[in-house]
Amino acid sequence: MSTKDRLLGYLKESKGDWVSGELLSRRIGITRSAIWKNISKLREEGYVIESSPNKGYSLSKISEMLLPNEIREGLDTEIFGRGEIIHFRETDSTNARAKELAIQGAPEGTLIVSETQTKGRGRKGRTWFSPSEAGIYASLVLRPNMPPNEAPRITFVTAVSAAETLLALTSLEVAIKWPNDILVNNKKIAGILTEISAEMDAIDYMVVGLGMNVNNPHLPDDIEEKATSIFIETGKRFPKVRIVREYLRRQEKYCRILRDSGFEPILMRWKELTNTIGKRIMVEMIDKRYTGVVQDVDQEGVLILQDEKGAFHRILSGDVTFV
Amino acid sequence: MSTKDRLLGYLKESKGDWVSGELLSRRIGITRSAIWKNISKLREEGYVIESSPNKGYSLSKISEMLLPNEIREGLDTEIFGRGEIIHFRETDSTNARAKELAIQGAPEGTLIVSETQTKGRGRKGRTWFSPSEAGIYASLVLRPNMPPNEAPRITFVTAVSAAETLLALTSLEVAIKWPNDILVNNKKIAGILTEISAEMDAIDYMVVGLGMNVNNPHLPDDIEEKATSIFIETGKRFPKVRIVREYLRRQEKYCRILRDSGFEPILMRWKELTNTIGKRIMVEMIDKRYTGVVQDVDQEGVLILQDEKGAFHRILSGDVTFV
Repeated sequence: MSTKDRLLGYLKESKGDWVSGELLSRRIGITRSAIWKNISKLREEGYVIESSPNKGYSLSKISEMLLPNEIREGLDTEIFGRGEIIHFRETDSTNARAKELAIQGAPEGTLIVSETQTKGRGRKGRTWFSPSEAGIYASLVLRPNMPPNEAPRITFVTAVSAAETLLALTSLEVAIKWPNDILVNNKKIAGILTEISAEMDAIDYMVVGLGMNVNNPHLPDDIEEKATSIFIETGKRFPKVRIVREYLRRQEKYCRILRDSGFEPILMRWKELTNTIGKRIMVEMIDKRYTGVVQDVDQEGVLILQDEKGAFHRILSGDVTFV
Repeated sequence: MSTKDRLLGYLKESKGDWVSGELLSRRIGITRSAIWKNISKLREEGYVIESSPNKGYSLSKISEMLLPNEIREGLDTEIFGRGEIIHFRETDSTNARAKELAIQGAPEGTLIVSETQTKGRGRKGRTWFSPSEAGIYASLVLRPNMPPNEAPRITFVTAVSAAETLLALTSLEVAIKWPNDILVNNKKIAGILTEISAEMDAIDYMVVGLGMNVNNPHLPDDIEEKATSIFIETGKRFPKVRIVREYLRRQEKYCRILRDSGFEPILMRWKELTNTIGKRIMVEMIDKRYTGVVQDVDQEGVLILQDEKGAFHRILSGDVTFV
């Protein structure tokens, strides 16, 4: 454990009470000026630490950033987030970083988080609005032992995990919109971007990106009708780190269920959480669009739509609008 | 065009006749010593160029390496091999290099070739024996506009292209073994390794690797019963560059047919070239194996096997042994 982490540990232990620099210096075995340097580092990381010449130091607020140590604290997973957690103040896209690491052999459960993304991406190269410190931008490296055609199952796993995370931690009414959006009040609060690298036989690696609007006080004009944040819905700031821990826990749980019991239990839970079945929708694909009523999502995750003329369509992927 | 290439052009024009250094020097507009330096470079690239103080230079043999200029000469494709062709004397794996380039945005048709591979790969991380200058190790970057579940179609396209290339240029009897081997006399002469990077909706890029045993005089003990080369089958060395050109031409043609007319014509041609339908085989997958008779390969490229008890199995991928 680094000096900085030990110092933070002592400050956390004292729960907001003052700790003298002398005591810290003796306990950690470093000079007073080294204490001061490490306090500065912690402040740069977003910890609010008060100091007084007479009383010493007091931690009044932990960092709001998704720092690896904060994520690990109380994280009760076995694999996800147990190995490397890599934190960026800013990066182009956490999925891009995760793919680079995966190519270099990063094991399952490696997590990449960033406070902001300069090229946050959604499906089909669309942008994902990623303002600094307001949202969660997290990408997980997975190495499931499955053929590539089963990869969409992981998007279902992730949607269930993200939706359950919001249900567990907030009072919001959450719904999954096929294929990969999480809605609150019919507005997008989180999105999933699943990317794979595979041979025909087997997946080499998968990267599952989760973008979630958490503490955004408002959203840009062009998306505010279609998107929302936890803050907008509840009026309260929410600790992002709790969301990430809860998400990792559920993601690991449902990945294990998928591996041990197959897709059926995932799909069952997904159907309880979706708002898409039974609805009248328009779905747009690359080369065509259909309007009709969603009959079901089948065993392969394919949307079954019945159009106005009564014809059934199997839709692998597309953009859904409720009409 | 570089000085070296212009020099090579003049030597090729004179078709083995002697050309004086003085004439070359005048035509290209460089000194006699610059001519000599470029002759040395060409020799390093494998061109056999004789020199005589009185007569000058004579090109007696073009390089046996897969040099970009040699591949381009007479290549009548529109896209494949028209942009960048990257040649290595040695690399770990042409597929690995191609993936790196694809991530950086290399366009469709970019070709990577190497004289030898230190980590030549087959399916499922198996090695592909890649001795220096004996075989073709070529990887093509593709960017097909298709959902990832249709990616296996490209393996069928490649198998047809590789098999037809051998049929067009040699007198060998060639057969495709499902899913991705090219056989001569029931021995493997070429293999295909298809890798994709995709979102759930769309393929970002594909890399199609082709490994072919061409001028290998013999093969290592551990594979010689199961593998062969053009040299072993015909007793003749074969210019690799002709094979690569022919392969690029057919690969482009069948990719275009797939795009414009769908999978049906590809599958029809594939079925004419395969030896797998109607055969009794054992197929081994990750977690199980079946023995039975191959009934068909369906519209999705899936093998339909009927086992001893009459039950049908749909097999997406596996290792096939004729029994």
